[in-house]
Amino acid sequence: MSLSRPKGTRMETIDHLISAHWVLPIAPTNTILENHSVAIHHDRIIDMLPTADAEKRYQPQQKTTLKDHALMPGLVNAHAHTPMNLFRGLADDLNLMDWLQNHIWPAEQALINAESVAIGCQLAIAEMLRGGTTCFNDHYFFPDTIAKSAIAAGIRSCVGLVIMSVPTDWASDEDAYFAKAKQTLENFADNPLITWSIAPHAPYTVSDASFTKIRELNATLKLPVHIHLHETAFEVDESLKQFGKRPVQRLHDLGLLTPELIAVHMTQLNDDDINLIKNAGSHVAHCPESNLKLASGFAPIGKLIDAGINVAIGTDGAASNNNLDMFGELQTAALLAKAQSGNPTCLPADEALAMATINGAKSLGLDKEIGSIEKGKAADLIAVDLSHFITQPVYNPMSHLAYAVNSQQVSHVWVAGQCLLKEGELTRLNTDALLDAAKPWVEKAAKFGSEKA
Amino acid sequence: MSLSRPKGTRMETIDHLISAHWVLPIAPTNTILENHSVAIHHDRIIDMLPTADAEKRYQPQQKTTLKDHALMPGLVNAHAHTPMNLFRGLADDLNLMDWLQNHIWPAEQALINAESVAIGCQLAIAEMLRGGTTCFNDHYFFPDTIAKSAIAAGIRSCVGLVIMSVPTDWASDEDAYFAKAKQTLENFADNPLITWSIAPHAPYTVSDASFTKIRELNATLKLPVHIHLHETAFEVDESLKQFGKRPVQRLHDLGLLTPELIAVHMTQLNDDDINLIKNAGSHVAHCPESNLKLASGFAPIGKLIDAGINVAIGTDGAASNNNLDMFGELQTAALLAKAQSGNPTCLPADEALAMATINGAKSLGLDKEIGSIEKGKAADLIAVDLSHFITQPVYNPMSHLAYAVNSQQVSHVWVAGQCLLKEGELTRLNTDALLDAAKPWVEKAAKFGSEKA
Repeated sequence: MSLSRPKGTRMETIDHLISAHWVLPIAPTNTILENHSVAIHHDRIIDMLPTADAEKRYQPQQKTTLKDHALMPGLVNAHAHTPMNLFRGLADDLNLMDWLQNHIWPAEQALINAESVAIGCQLAIAEMLRGGTTCFNDHYFFPDTIAKSAIAAGIRSCVGLVIMSVPTDWASDEDAYFAKAKQTLENFADNPLITWSIAPHAPYTVSDASFTKIRELNATLKLPVHIHLHETAFEVDESLKQFGKRPVQRLHDLGLLTPELIAVHMTQLNDDDINLIKNAGSHVAHCPESNLKLASGFAPIGKLIDAGINVAIGTDGAASNNNLDMFGELQTAALLAKAQSGNPTCLPADEALAMATINGAKSLGLDKEIGSIEKGKAADLIAVDLSHFITQPVYNPMSHLAYAVNSQQVSHVWVAGQCLLKEGELTRLNTDALLDAAKPWVEKAAKFGSEKA
Repeated sequence: MSLSRPKGTRMETIDHLISAHWVLPIAPTNTILENHSVAIHHDRIIDMLPTADAEKRYQPQQKTTLKDHALMPGLVNAHAHTPMNLFRGLADDLNLMDWLQNHIWPAEQALINAESVAIGCQLAIAEMLRGGTTCFNDHYFFPDTIAKSAIAAGIRSCVGLVIMSVPTDWASDEDAYFAKAKQTLENFADNPLITWSIAPHAPYTVSDASFTKIRELNATLKLPVHIHLHETAFEVDESLKQFGKRPVQRLHDLGLLTPELIAVHMTQLNDDDINLIKNAGSHVAHCPESNLKLASGFAPIGKLIDAGINVAIGTDGAASNNNLDMFGELQTAALLAKAQSGNPTCLPADEALAMATINGAKSLGLDKEIGSIEKGKAADLIAVDLSHFITQPVYNPMSHLAYAVNSQQVSHVWVAGQCLLKEGELTRLNTDALLDAAKPWVEKAAKFGSEKA
């Protein structure tokens, strides 16, 4: 506390004051504040101000000083299949249909239930927290289990209520998926960390009738609708054959293109597709590493940005990436957008960081709550230690966060003010116990793997 | 040592036995050996065998047991500008010519001398060793300083003797560069860690007369020739205007396309270019992250592989990447090759790892010495700890090394048998002292940076 504080000044007692070398609030854009502090009370950000002023104004119960760190909003992973952490590296370097039909789907049929989903999901949460992700948008079976896992771990999530025609242990047909979705929503007690989306799998696994039901649900519930869309050229071609129109056009005609739609992948787009998305105010979740690995194609990020479409960033599942490293993903996004557009000024560092934070929050309808460091928002924050020689010298911390940082440099993570990572160590999840619990599932999964040397 | 060893068996005394859960020798390709050991004596690999056998046969002075690790040959960074670590993040998100002319070149003019080169180079070596690189192919001014820095740090390198028409503190014109190159070669005492290349900067900064001299030197000395080639469409267009031919054709006509040529970048290639490289037996150093960041384009890796061309992987300098993380680079290469070729089976995990090791060694003419774990080769080895939950479960360690691993999981690095990284800590370089020494240079460089928020 400053010795120069005038005697008798009334100081405000707060829970926590975090002081950092650099604070990147993300809103306003492209802003770097030096020697600033963020004041937290209960689960909220109540102030952001120069550290010298903060020390005169606030009497914190707890004080965290981050002298070599950048403090920024937590990363928002806009597309994940968390339980698939159990399948990381199970099968690689295959054609998409071979990968799905001969490896991933059989493994899911054999293994996926509430128990395995809980273990895989918690391992994924551990990985995401370690790398600075404070909120994830999930799309998988057993959403109630995923929500419970997220709450127990203290991370924020938007949990997809999956709808598809393919039978699984979760539901046997589209009607059963709807029933399960309804039941999950009704039975689950409100929790500030959990929101829900309706999650139709993809245009090729959901019928027009079901899309119509989803549109009606969307109109009533105003939940985000989270769908894989235009992932591959094959998907677009099949839609043209079966429906005589491209998937985006089909969803438009069915009334699904709304400001609540999160369209994941979007690698195969013509100008008409882009205009439809733009006019609807729908969101794109860009998963560059998965798109590259499966050779799905290149999402035209420069064009989407120019059209004013909100683009967020997601990792996809660990079976097709093969990590949930959002700093790595935003680096890939920032690099790839330049080459794809032929313009080295496309998606500069500050915009890439915004994509991975506030744009993700917008896509989930959570931008009043998270995605930037602003008074009144939830205290979802991360600190990144830039003192390591792999990020020295520091001319501009934003450049390093976009282009140089290693996710293991994330030192602290707070969600709703709760510290979930401290000096690089997880505070809640016991990963050794989780890996032990995973063992029998891993043994079962191994037989669905691609042939080894 | 095994208790069941028959009494009286004569054991061989060796310096070091490294036993690992997995050994990936790289040659033969796509091989994963479980519970194997590598026997090292002096600076050489003298054996690779099952650990149970090794414990009966060898009496090591030192024993390293790596129970959760993959042991593999050290990574070979096929293209670097190590001193540019001083400029990491100095200027980003700019058009190439703006970046070069208004930021990088002025900073180099103002700062680059033997002292700054030594500091930047050592910081780069620290970063490379931390991430598992045991050999780098450098291209910069003050090559004698770079070679000395490498020897002091214990890392292996091929040091480029730069030739160009642009005046610098190192040399004032092409003749002066040749004189400096000759002088460096003559004055430098032989060292087993150092080899040399002739390093013409690029087709647009080197005259035909100099290329002819380089051809003559190459014919006599048989040194690798290390050049930036077909980096951008602009370079190709300018060559067509000035010389009436594409740069690859020009180099061919000047006799530069030989089995000693390392052509860096190669993003703008037609079938004729590829045929010329193929027929010459020249090598390509692929720098995917730099090519993406500067929007230079996409090297057609699938086509180069199909043509049978040896492709290695390089990071380029920290000013255009912005890290020297070879695991990250090989992951990017493996992902990008798939999307660029439209084929998800292109550049599978084992081939990506070979590119980053044995192919790099081949490009430097060092494949008899390094690049794989084989009897008689130098003991340039790295261990990667896969026990972290970010690389669990392990169905196939090769998949994780190509697609999931974080470079901070590199636990041990040996070059010529000397341990340079132990349990993640550098054993020789003092990075705090280096960062202190860098400070005055960083202050001077800062004024050449891109404008900040």
